[in-house]
Amino acid sequence: MTAEVLDRAGASLAAESARFTARGWMPGTAGNLSVTVGRDPLRLAVTASGLDKGELTPADIVVVDADGVGVLGEGGSEQRPSAEAGLHARIAAVTGAGAVIHVHALAAVTAGHHWPEGVVLRDLEMLKGIGHSAHGETVTIPVIANGQDMTVLGDAFEALYVRPASGENDVPALIVADHGIYAWGRDLRQARWHLELTEALLQIVLSRR
Amino acid sequence: MTAEVLDRAGASLAAESARFTARGWMPGTAGNLSVTVGRDPLRLAVTASGLDKGELTPADIVVVDADGVGVLGEGGSEQRPSAEAGLHARIAAVTGAGAVIHVHALAAVTAGHHWPEGVVLRDLEMLKGIGHSAHGETVTIPVIANGQDMTVLGDAFEALYVRPASGENDVPALIVADHGIYAWGRDLRQARWHLELTEALLQIVLSRR
Amino acid sequence: MTAEVLDRAGASLAAESARFTARGWMPGTAGNLSVTVGRDPLRLAVTASGLDKGELTPADIVVVDADGVGVLGEGGSEQRPSAEAGLHARIAAVTGAGAVIHVHALAAVTAGHHWPEGVVLRDLEMLKGIGHSAHGETVTIPVIANGQDMTVLGDAFEALYVRPASGENDVPALIVADHGIYAWGRDLRQARWHLELTEALLQIVLSRR
Amino acid sequence: MTAEVLDRAGASLAAESARFTARGWMPGTAGNLSVTVGRDPLRLAVTASGLDKGELTPADIVVVDADGVGVLGEGGSEQRPSAEAGLHARIAAVTGAGAVIHVHALAAVTAGHHWPEGVVLRDLEMLKGIGHSAHGETVTIPVIANGQDMTVLGDAFEALYVRPASGENDVPALIVADHGIYAWGRDLRQARWHLELTEALLQIVLSRR
Repeated sequence: MTAEVLDRAGASLAAESARFTARGWMPGTAGNLSVTVGRDPLRLAVTASGLDKGELTPADIVVVDADGVGVLGEGGSEQRPSAEAGLHARIAAVTGAGAVIHVHALAAVTAGHHWPEGVVLRDLEMLKGIGHSAHGETVTIPVIANGQDMTVLGDAFEALYVRPASGENDVPALIVADHGIYAWGRDLRQARWHLELTEALLQIVLSRR
Repeated sequence: MTAEVLDRAGASLAAESARFTARGWMPGTAGNLSVTVGRDPLRLAVTASGLDKGELTPADIVVVDADGVGVLGEGGSEQRPSAEAGLHARIAAVTGAGAVIHVHALAAVTAGHHWPEGVVLRDLEMLKGIGHSAHGETVTIPVIANGQDMTVLGDAFEALYVRPASGENDVPALIVADHGIYAWGRDLRQARWHLELTEALLQIVLSRR
Repeated sequence: MTAEVLDRAGASLAAESARFTARGWMPGTAGNLSVTVGRDPLRLAVTASGLDKGELTPADIVVVDADGVGVLGEGGSEQRPSAEAGLHARIAAVTGAGAVIHVHALAAVTAGHHWPEGVVLRDLEMLKGIGHSAHGETVTIPVIANGQDMTVLGDAFEALYVRPASGENDVPALIVADHGIYAWGRDLRQARWHLELTEALLQIVLSRR
Repeated sequence: MTAEVLDRAGASLAAESARFTARGWMPGTAGNLSVTVGRDPLRLAVTASGLDKGELTPADIVVVDADGVGVLGEGGSEQRPSAEAGLHARIAAVTGAGAVIHVHALAAVTAGHHWPEGVVLRDLEMLKGIGHSAHGETVTIPVIANGQDMTVLGDAFEALYVRPASGENDVPALIVADHGIYAWGRDLRQARWHLELTEALLQIVLSRR
């Protein structure tokens, strides 16, 4: 990939990270964002680990492969990628997403605690914004248990994501219980839209408990 | 209408949309705003559909008629108007509003869920800001069921809005259950004031449950 | 008073109004702020009525007397002062305040509803910030009923403010039930400090219900 | 120490204070921040008392010793240090922290009220950000009673901080009940990270009550 592609990706990742930091969704150095920059083989530009997400520069990205392992010699910094890059890559591989966002938004953590089997949503207008019907369709935001092995988390995600003989429950978001939320889309902007809408939907169902 | 009128309308709509996005009231691409730019026949400039409401430009407006259908050749962009433009137009026609705002504010959605027959407000100072008395008058913020057919929603609104032989319950706001809120006024600024006041009133009554 | 004094007062009032608007404490055109600009006779510069409090200019002030009635010919604009200017003036007269702030902050309205006889605070560090002890002293934020006659409200305030033979309950804040809060201080900055601290104290006691 | 070191410390302290003020964590003149500028003897640059924490300049710092007493002739202003400087100094001495932050964040005050024996956290991802495991480890955010004698508070902190024969409960945060929270780290940025993460963790456990 060209330096220009990575520069653009880095600038977008820094800008969106600053936005989420301002919303309080990236406390400390929590969370990470990625953009898919290559498909064959799979390559993601992901925010570097351990940095303040409100102060990233376009250079603070790492190129990782399908396992979330840093790839040297293809551009990006030589900083350490987050361990969570492995789940970003799995989501990008399974869903075809062009961008993945992971933040520690409160409604997601709270909803994941109350509904560990998945958060059931139905008859809400904003379901349209995540690809479903506003009426008469039951949509479940999947919830998986937290863990430090991204292969285990990726398998748990994939088991819930691929529905037998249907694409019915294709939801562009995943709650990791006691941890946070992942949301994705064709690009970083749509991934943000999906994140904002899912968090808003979760706030609504939490307000009804 | 002149290009200057549309330019001014577009600039105001973009600025107010950015304001509501910053407040979290327009997650994803949710919500839309309009300004009445002609009365005979009715014409509204409404924000275009599917765009990030924090990043609109003055050109991101569509001119629609009394049914919310895009009108070509009268200025504005050729982008797709939101389906909800039909409800904007109905509200403008019925109430004479110069501007209508539709956002997905949380207190409105929560209140609409708890009080599907309408949210009853009484003895609150801020009722003065939406045209009523701070004392001794019962005011109901109407709530209608959500739906995708704007004619049905418009009829439901009109049935609640026009009181037999009185103007008593003239409230410049409407909750669409499981969805969001509409507020309107003589211009975009007053429509915003009505929105802010109604949302604040709803937060007060929700805090008392 | 000189034009310079009024100019400075107007600039401060506009800046602080914009600050409170950004916090959501002045929905619509709600709330008003004043600075004492003369003592003998009493004169206040108060924000003009009916304007967006996020968009005031230094010229958007009115000079009022001890009854809150606009005084012509002494500078300031000829706009209409808020009816609430009468309560500002009473507070300035009774307490010697150099500035009074009135906003519609949510915790104040909620606390006033739950504790109409006054909000009792005790053993909280921030009581020091409103002139009391952090330990072993019971402090009551007075609550008065809402009304439109500022003489009635002023009398209710004064009855609660002046304690027989003591200055014990001298609290620089007053809740008007179903309405909002007044806070004051020697200048606009200290009045804001008192407002921020009182609202924070009320949030604490509300979180403990 | 050199003027340059103090200038840099002052600029950082002013910037971070403004950040926390914007979040509502420093109402009135509440809270204070410090940076360790000397170890032998211990010297801290601490924000001056009684000032608006959103408007500090780099010069608004005081140099204090291990007892939190102002030291003249070593740079910094001659303003009054906060009484709380004594607890800052104790924390810096006991933990080796390079920076200490004290703010009045709501979740800390609420959690300290509900769990006066300490806030027990377990199985939460963000525990990693304050130096613990996300799984299978019980971590307690210590809570001490409020008081005005910093020696008493410092002793209470030290009794909870130093665990017999272990470093197990080394948590970079301390709740002072009915008052606020202290957080610290190797520098001001890491202290902020610890503060943000602890406040987020407390919001999570409060949402589960």
